[in-house]
Amino acid sequence: MNDVDVVVVGAGIAGLSAARALTAAGKTVTVLEARDRVAGRTFGGFLSNGVPVELGGQWVGPTQDAVLELIDELGLETFPTYAEGDGVMAYGGDVVRYDDPTYGLPSSSVAEVARLWMMIEELASTINITAPWETENADELDRSTLDQWLTSNTADPTALQFFRLQVPALFSAEAAELSLLHFLFYIKSGTSLQVLVDVEGGAQERRVVGGTHQLSERMAAELGERVRLETVVHTITQDDSGVVAAYEGGEVSAGYAVIALPPTLAGRLHYSPPLPASRDSLTQQMPAGSVIKFHIAYAEPFWRHEGLSGAAFSLDDAFNVVFDNSPPDASCGILVGFLEGIHARRAASLDADERRELVLSALVKYFGPKAANPFDLVQQDWNAEEFTRGCYGGRLGAGAWTSYGPALAAPVGRLHWAGAETSEVWNGYMDGAVRSGRRAAHEILTQLD
Amino acid sequence: MNDVDVVVVGAGIAGLSAARALTAAGKTVTVLEARDRVAGRTFGGFLSNGVPVELGGQWVGPTQDAVLELIDELGLETFPTYAEGDGVMAYGGDVVRYDDPTYGLPSSSVAEVARLWMMIEELASTINITAPWETENADELDRSTLDQWLTSNTADPTALQFFRLQVPALFSAEAAELSLLHFLFYIKSGTSLQVLVDVEGGAQERRVVGGTHQLSERMAAELGERVRLETVVHTITQDDSGVVAAYEGGEVSAGYAVIALPPTLAGRLHYSPPLPASRDSLTQQMPAGSVIKFHIAYAEPFWRHEGLSGAAFSLDDAFNVVFDNSPPDASCGILVGFLEGIHARRAASLDADERRELVLSALVKYFGPKAANPFDLVQQDWNAEEFTRGCYGGRLGAGAWTSYGPALAAPVGRLHWAGAETSEVWNGYMDGAVRSGRRAAHEILTQLD
Repeated sequence: MNDVDVVVVGAGIAGLSAARALTAAGKTVTVLEARDRVAGRTFGGFLSNGVPVELGGQWVGPTQDAVLELIDELGLETFPTYAEGDGVMAYGGDVVRYDDPTYGLPSSSVAEVARLWMMIEELASTINITAPWETENADELDRSTLDQWLTSNTADPTALQFFRLQVPALFSAEAAELSLLHFLFYIKSGTSLQVLVDVEGGAQERRVVGGTHQLSERMAAELGERVRLETVVHTITQDDSGVVAAYEGGEVSAGYAVIALPPTLAGRLHYSPPLPASRDSLTQQMPAGSVIKFHIAYAEPFWRHEGLSGAAFSLDDAFNVVFDNSPPDASCGILVGFLEGIHARRAASLDADERRELVLSALVKYFGPKAANPFDLVQQDWNAEEFTRGCYGGRLGAGAWTSYGPALAAPVGRLHWAGAETSEVWNGYMDGAVRSGRRAAHEILTQLD
Repeated sequence: MNDVDVVVVGAGIAGLSAARALTAAGKTVTVLEARDRVAGRTFGGFLSNGVPVELGGQWVGPTQDAVLELIDELGLETFPTYAEGDGVMAYGGDVVRYDDPTYGLPSSSVAEVARLWMMIEELASTINITAPWETENADELDRSTLDQWLTSNTADPTALQFFRLQVPALFSAEAAELSLLHFLFYIKSGTSLQVLVDVEGGAQERRVVGGTHQLSERMAAELGERVRLETVVHTITQDDSGVVAAYEGGEVSAGYAVIALPPTLAGRLHYSPPLPASRDSLTQQMPAGSVIKFHIAYAEPFWRHEGLSGAAFSLDDAFNVVFDNSPPDASCGILVGFLEGIHARRAASLDADERRELVLSALVKYFGPKAANPFDLVQQDWNAEEFTRGCYGGRLGAGAWTSYGPALAAPVGRLHWAGAETSEVWNGYMDGAVRSGRRAAHEILTQLD
């Protein structure tokens, strides 16, 4: 007799969504989590004044129906991301304000960005998101990197730089590190490039009051003692009768397992029997992105008084993507910004003070001298987190989708894979995580019934 | 008090070379090996007639001074790879014989291949192999894939196909999966592209009588009880006083550790304290190649009687790189060939009989009907090997060298990294493995003295 019907490894949104669906269907479940907290790549922190901040994934938007439904079910509420006023864009040594979709770029580059953008949206519309490797021209699209496509399709250095900025903002990785097929898949998975980058009507439209980590906390509260923290699973064994998940000091036996870890961590567990070559090779080739997230807190959102939205982008600086992240009551002013891709990697070797200096000097450039003296500055380096090892998520470089695509979500015997990276809809987002957990639960319920 | 001065994880050529150097310097060493055998990516097997075959790395050549010296020290001998007679090349539906460096390609493509080859050799000569990321234009070279460079520099589809064939033959990976910087580094590390692909005067010039796995076996014999097999290390802990390598049922404490595993496996150990972000991200981005190696054995090397060398290449077929691999006395005839890169991945899901069929039909095409009936056929899928997970070695895709290069060989506290992938000279080869082990030993001796 097994201890439970299903053991779930990982108590992020995906794993907990799977456990919740299984429990609702009357199955017994144990969730094993390495950390002393649930919520994975969502994570709640606090400023020195007690205001909560979100150190991980935070935005939700329209068409993310699975996560929006979950927010509602769990009794949480959302509020709109602040986006009134002008944005600022730094490039060519200048900082310019803009109040339209031009990002303040010179008109020739605006036209070129629009042309490339349209080409991208059209190409993305051709992708088979259920089986990207079966897309027409998949081999050709997968052999090219996104950077290769960009450099082949524009001679405008500003337009090129603009996309080389937007790509890390979405992937925490550089355009050369993504296959064109993966980029296009990801776009279509999240509806369109426009939807991915937009605040209003897009993926950054709303936030959860109190923080998105509450999704996991409330699911875990429902699950009660089914969730065990500080339990670092190291070995997964399966045979005809079931699965055993072993951790230091114990093990859980079950009929099935849901592995709800980022792919690079799922690939590090010891499996007996060993996983097939295709699955192992896939996880070798799905590295996580590189990002350090910063919250910079001021007594008030002073930029709003100057007609600024708090959004800043830069083609010149390392700290190049910034948004207003103040609490709904604007009781203080918070900017959120990111070092992403190559900039996060370079900053990994800086100490906290050096990073702070780098961040504040950029903010002074974007928002003036008031930005120099926050009352708090919080840093979160996701690549240094042992039980995440990179955000926002795993990506596929040139060749990987067409070599290993089917191994991404296909069960291996009694092992089922969940996690935002395994979702065909809103891949890489919290919504995708919810969907992936439900899908893994459904796969197992089909077997159990 | 620690158990030993140094614990070495992995008893391949690199780990054993480190252990041997440390022992020679009077230090106490324990080597922990997961498998029930030593030798890692070299591996000795036997045909049904008792003739030994090499299921892993097998060739050595001039300028590989470290491994040649080791062969000599260990009392082993080499013999020349058989390379008399014509090669065959399949392309465009035809099979042609050639007896010169043209590979039988049409003359316009021969000229184009030569032009590209020269460009590659010139570019490679500019690389700083000690610190590839400090090469002039490193960012540009690393942002491009090799495939991107090839498609940008030739309009000749046959020349392009030729390089898309040669690249997997060297890396077991596709041209799109390598950054241009990594390809150029690798070439210069092994002297030149010409040297890498050549038999006479090149990396395939000689073989070791009885097999290269004897290098490890003889080093292990010298080390005696210092080498412990079937010891799967899972955790490496370090503090100010030393290192502990833990395995199921025990542990070894030491002053220092040499981790002599392929990068993707080194990245899977549990480290306490956790490794820095840069090192962890590096191993996430250094996947192993994909290769299935085949030995096909006949009563005699019948191709030699027809004036053929046994070398065959194909731009049309999956099984596209073949050499004569008969024993030195030609007591039977053996062909060795590879499914590499995308072809290995596709074949991973075939069963042994289906692969056999695929291989034999190609050999009949290259060498005629006598090839249809071998007395034995031996397959080795390195990606399915739990304690290797891919050959020939780890590669770096676009962006990785310039993001993480310094983390490849730099010690982390008391942990020192060895393995063919960490060598600046003959990176990826047995020679590089020997050098890397000696380098790691030297690093530690400098600390200990």
